[in-house]
Amino acid sequence: MTTFSFLDDYSEGAHPDILSALTASNLEQQRPYGDDDYCADATARVKARLGDRFQGAIHYVASGTLANIVSIAACLRPHEAVIAATSGHIVTREAGAIEATGHKLIVVPPVDGKLTPQSIETALDSNAHFPHMAKPRLIYLSNATETGTVYTLAELRAISTLARQRGLLLFVDGARLGAALASDQNDATLADIASLADIFWIGGTKAGALIGEAIVVCHPELAVDFAFHLKQRGAMLAKGRLLGIQFQALFGDKDLFFQNARHANAMAARLAAGIVANGHALASETATNLVFAILPDTVIEAMKRDFDFYVWERTDASRSLVRLVTSWATDVRQVDAFVARLAELRGQARATG
Amino acid sequence: MTTFSFLDDYSEGAHPDILSALTASNLEQQRPYGDDDYCADATARVKARLGDRFQGAIHYVASGTLANIVSIAACLRPHEAVIAATSGHIVTREAGAIEATGHKLIVVPPVDGKLTPQSIETALDSNAHFPHMAKPRLIYLSNATETGTVYTLAELRAISTLARQRGLLLFVDGARLGAALASDQNDATLADIASLADIFWIGGTKAGALIGEAIVVCHPELAVDFAFHLKQRGAMLAKGRLLGIQFQALFGDKDLFFQNARHANAMAARLAAGIVANGHALASETATNLVFAILPDTVIEAMKRDFDFYVWERTDASRSLVRLVTSWATDVRQVDAFVARLAELRGQARATG
Amino acid sequence: MTTFSFLDDYSEGAHPDILSALTASNLEQQRPYGDDDYCADATARVKARLGDRFQGAIHYVASGTLANIVSIAACLRPHEAVIAATSGHIVTREAGAIEATGHKLIVVPPVDGKLTPQSIETALDSNAHFPHMAKPRLIYLSNATETGTVYTLAELRAISTLARQRGLLLFVDGARLGAALASDQNDATLADIASLADIFWIGGTKAGALIGEAIVVCHPELAVDFAFHLKQRGAMLAKGRLLGIQFQALFGDKDLFFQNARHANAMAARLAAGIVANGHALASETATNLVFAILPDTVIEAMKRDFDFYVWERTDASRSLVRLVTSWATDVRQVDAFVARLAELRGQARATG
Amino acid sequence: MTTFSFLDDYSEGAHPDILSALTASNLEQQRPYGDDDYCADATARVKARLGDRFQGAIHYVASGTLANIVSIAACLRPHEAVIAATSGHIVTREAGAIEATGHKLIVVPPVDGKLTPQSIETALDSNAHFPHMAKPRLIYLSNATETGTVYTLAELRAISTLARQRGLLLFVDGARLGAALASDQNDATLADIASLADIFWIGGTKAGALIGEAIVVCHPELAVDFAFHLKQRGAMLAKGRLLGIQFQALFGDKDLFFQNARHANAMAARLAAGIVANGHALASETATNLVFAILPDTVIEAMKRDFDFYVWERTDASRSLVRLVTSWATDVRQVDAFVARLAELRGQARATG
Repeated sequence: MTTFSFLDDYSEGAHPDILSALTASNLEQQRPYGDDDYCADATARVKARLGDRFQGAIHYVASGTLANIVSIAACLRPHEAVIAATSGHIVTREAGAIEATGHKLIVVPPVDGKLTPQSIETALDSNAHFPHMAKPRLIYLSNATETGTVYTLAELRAISTLARQRGLLLFVDGARLGAALASDQNDATLADIASLADIFWIGGTKAGALIGEAIVVCHPELAVDFAFHLKQRGAMLAKGRLLGIQFQALFGDKDLFFQNARHANAMAARLAAGIVANGHALASETATNLVFAILPDTVIEAMKRDFDFYVWERTDASRSLVRLVTSWATDVRQVDAFVARLAELRGQARATG
Repeated sequence: MTTFSFLDDYSEGAHPDILSALTASNLEQQRPYGDDDYCADATARVKARLGDRFQGAIHYVASGTLANIVSIAACLRPHEAVIAATSGHIVTREAGAIEATGHKLIVVPPVDGKLTPQSIETALDSNAHFPHMAKPRLIYLSNATETGTVYTLAELRAISTLARQRGLLLFVDGARLGAALASDQNDATLADIASLADIFWIGGTKAGALIGEAIVVCHPELAVDFAFHLKQRGAMLAKGRLLGIQFQALFGDKDLFFQNARHANAMAARLAAGIVANGHALASETATNLVFAILPDTVIEAMKRDFDFYVWERTDASRSLVRLVTSWATDVRQVDAFVARLAELRGQARATG
Repeated sequence: MTTFSFLDDYSEGAHPDILSALTASNLEQQRPYGDDDYCADATARVKARLGDRFQGAIHYVASGTLANIVSIAACLRPHEAVIAATSGHIVTREAGAIEATGHKLIVVPPVDGKLTPQSIETALDSNAHFPHMAKPRLIYLSNATETGTVYTLAELRAISTLARQRGLLLFVDGARLGAALASDQNDATLADIASLADIFWIGGTKAGALIGEAIVVCHPELAVDFAFHLKQRGAMLAKGRLLGIQFQALFGDKDLFFQNARHANAMAARLAAGIVANGHALASETATNLVFAILPDTVIEAMKRDFDFYVWERTDASRSLVRLVTSWATDVRQVDAFVARLAELRGQARATG
Repeated sequence: MTTFSFLDDYSEGAHPDILSALTASNLEQQRPYGDDDYCADATARVKARLGDRFQGAIHYVASGTLANIVSIAACLRPHEAVIAATSGHIVTREAGAIEATGHKLIVVPPVDGKLTPQSIETALDSNAHFPHMAKPRLIYLSNATETGTVYTLAELRAISTLARQRGLLLFVDGARLGAALASDQNDATLADIASLADIFWIGGTKAGALIGEAIVVCHPELAVDFAFHLKQRGAMLAKGRLLGIQFQALFGDKDLFFQNARHANAMAARLAAGIVANGHALASETATNLVFAILPDTVIEAMKRDFDFYVWERTDASRSLVRLVTSWATDVRQVDAFVARLAELRGQARATG
């Protein structure tokens, strides 16, 4: 690619420290299938952040969709359904992966990208004609959300409380959990999430790993037999070390997981500020590493010569909504170049205007 | 591990050339989901070996079980079943992964680890009470087999011919396809397999990759919409480059895929020869990288202090069958040390005998 | 029940002619699994109404949900999805039965209870991010709809044309197909439906059968191997004669299927007219055997002493929407009694008003 | 059919008392979906035979395959497998219905048509490589078996004890439970079965019903939410009364269920005795309503002119194994005619011999 890409947060390989760790350990012999020393150490490191009362289990898988498939299928009996926002990744971007395991998705419109206790109550009320309707049993939410917003601790607590009152399980898709926890708007810790959710996963792929997500099974009963589900869905790697080594590095002394997320968020904030400084509006506040801006179509066309990003939808006759994504790998010089080019275009517009 | 492991062929990381390739490309931006330059080049390199008439597609996944899940589920309608040997990996080692996609496995006893036209005919004859029985539709075989044997070209041709006569698809699990193709007993090429099978996969994990298998969809109709199945089963990696870079290296100028397999087979042959030279019997000929030997229990006990391997089953009052596996990473010095230790034990036995 | 029920169209057993037919044939020996003389004759009778070009197959199953499960699962590959209205029976009343076969439902808001070419286009457009989204492949519609409306021939043609243009299959849930075809608003024949749909079913249960629905597979390719799907889903009855005998009677010389449906519709029309005559509004026109009326809560309370029916939802401070269902078995005297009681209540209200 | 059929026990309709009951109740209005007075009364009658400690639930479905699908899918988590005999109905005659719900079948050779504690132990031992193998969780056995044999109380107790020791559920397919309980070789009651099994079903279809099987969920935890599984698999009939009325009659004052089964068994015994009296051997003892006899091919050919039955397999150069099935509907005159014809053929053979 000759242009610089702000398309997504998985355009590069891995943080160099992770490649180093893979190289350093490469020829050691290790037990297969996640039963290696590295997975054990990674798990100890992650558990150290989950609070003293954590009695669950941690498993590593290769992709976010696998994390969702394994987690949801492991939790549900055949007649049980998932409540999710219409914007949820499992609803719109996983090719029917959850339905392929036999389960219905009950969808509700998101509020600022999020589920709310009220929307969940509505889903419960309108899906109560039993046994003619599938039984709502698991709440699926993404944090950060698919639109880059973050759940506050109070919001998570309210949903968790409702879940426990109504006999529901709470599952958090953490593809961008690092970005959420590193957000200025966040006041929750990993330990909070482990105490409020029944099961969640920590995304490594978008946080600087080559590949890999850590499923955290908080509810001890759900942890029973969990490894079978990994194996059955093809998610148990022979060389499970590959995932252990990376999570050991991400949760090592350098705190790479959080450091990477903070960098991504900082780059997004810088990009957002530069866009605003050049007279353009944001479509929503930039809480994590996704920037939604409204740019004139002429500006978009010009910017596309040097930068790649998604044009989401037209907002009026002459402007469109664009999505720009930063990552652990985003070079500050590219952010500054983007802003400088915007400024240049602004200057030209003024000159000709 | 303080002992040297002959347990399996996935105890180490990756061939150093593969780690180098990952490192060299690491910070380049690439398109996601397998649409990157590396996957494209890897596919071109693999296709170059598949013969001019190949008109199918190649896709990369993270594990052998995923390769089996995706391939089989993509090929079959709900009422269609798989014919496999009772020793087949999908029968005994994948936690019901294929049944979890809704399909019955019809099993027949293997002959020297293999399916034969006769055993397939028997399966067809005893599963013909339609529609009360599931309809046999796909033949699953592993080459090399789970016991290390290799299908000859004539054997593959006979099965393929039968498959086409009877309206069956032929699917080859190639977890150890490298070992098979590099075997002294092999007379088939990748192009032969591509012309005889409807779909097969080339195992990278056991051939020196960190992770990854290449599914080769030979039958053009089966290739239609194939990517959906990857996505739906969680097998489409965001950083698909990870798999492309490795297969590019495996099928690059050094021919690493075959070189690695030849090394593994050579180490197994050397190990087997050393075992025989020290007065012990092999349970079966060593065609690939699996050695099956019959050792006295006292010898096993002594060897276990320095080497790790599976004791498969007791064969008589004082001896047991053991399995020793070599790989691309097996150090010839460890093979020689194993043989030397056997010789030492033999000397001691003679001295005390 | 001491009250008369207008709750649904399956509160009674079967039309007496059907019981007679069952009794008359009872001790004859017949081949099992639908391979009996009665199924053959029923199929010939139904086919006689499907037009000369019909080259498909007909199969009988015990319930509407089974008809939907078998039909949809038989048509789709794993990654293919169904487009349905949010009010569709498979969406709201079958406990996730379709998802349990592995398929996603893509839902769109109904217009007067119906799908439209425009709503289908919208579903296609918003589900085109392949392969990250399941592939829309089958259009599911109910005729009559769940709210008692009827598709005109022009509407069906427009949807069928779109389906063929866009590579979609058209499936019609005919739980109340009799009521639709007998409606004043209908201008389609069974032969029209057979030529426009790829697969549909004719509901017997709500048309006077004890049990049973006839799946009509119009598309010859879909008909191949269809019996396997019946067997696999538990829908193939050992005493398949039970279904054949009933459909023979329904499509016999008396035209019972249509006669029953006309009676149900006539009773609904009479009920609707009586409601209007007594000063109450209908929520929608009565096209088939479902009457939706808006009644004062005081009237509802009084009527409930003698009649049973569903109160659907509150429409304003003092009135609610009620649903009244008539059937082949509805006694005109009960309809008249209902209307007379309404008149009585109106008289009382005037006296006290 | 111009010949009399001994092909199976579902060639006729229903016992006349059942048709009478259907006719008598036909125009009564009843609540749908199994919530009717007849299902309630049938359940009370069946429960009266299950012992005081029974705290489970009873549900009615239309076919044996549905009973197996619903029961097994309701009991198992995705990674759990079924242990069954290779001769089990779910293994050989249900088109992969259980695998279609996602579960593996682990098969063992039958002993006299039955599972034994030893064969179950063998299945457990050879399926213990967790989590690479699916977890055995449910024992499936048929009583009477597919070959007409009957489990003694001691045999059932031994299997039940093993199941409880090893954390397995015991499920009994009762397609021919009537024939089993009415056998001379039986010493178990319905209450015994209810106390030993976790779930089982009582076959109505082969015991004189038009259609219908009663699933008895013994284990209270398994009974929770059970109705959802019926609905989801299409097994919940709108006119559930159809099943309730029949089971009320079967378990009514006349004890029709047992009376019908005794008649079927008596007819089989009479047939078996007549075959032996005419110089032919039985392949196995006749414990229920299936007779397995070895007849000369010339005799088979001659008998086929007047009677229909399955020729199972060739046993030697001139003789074959045939299966003859009797039922509640078998006319003693047809049994006697069969035997008389055998005698006649014997006479002819002697005359020409």
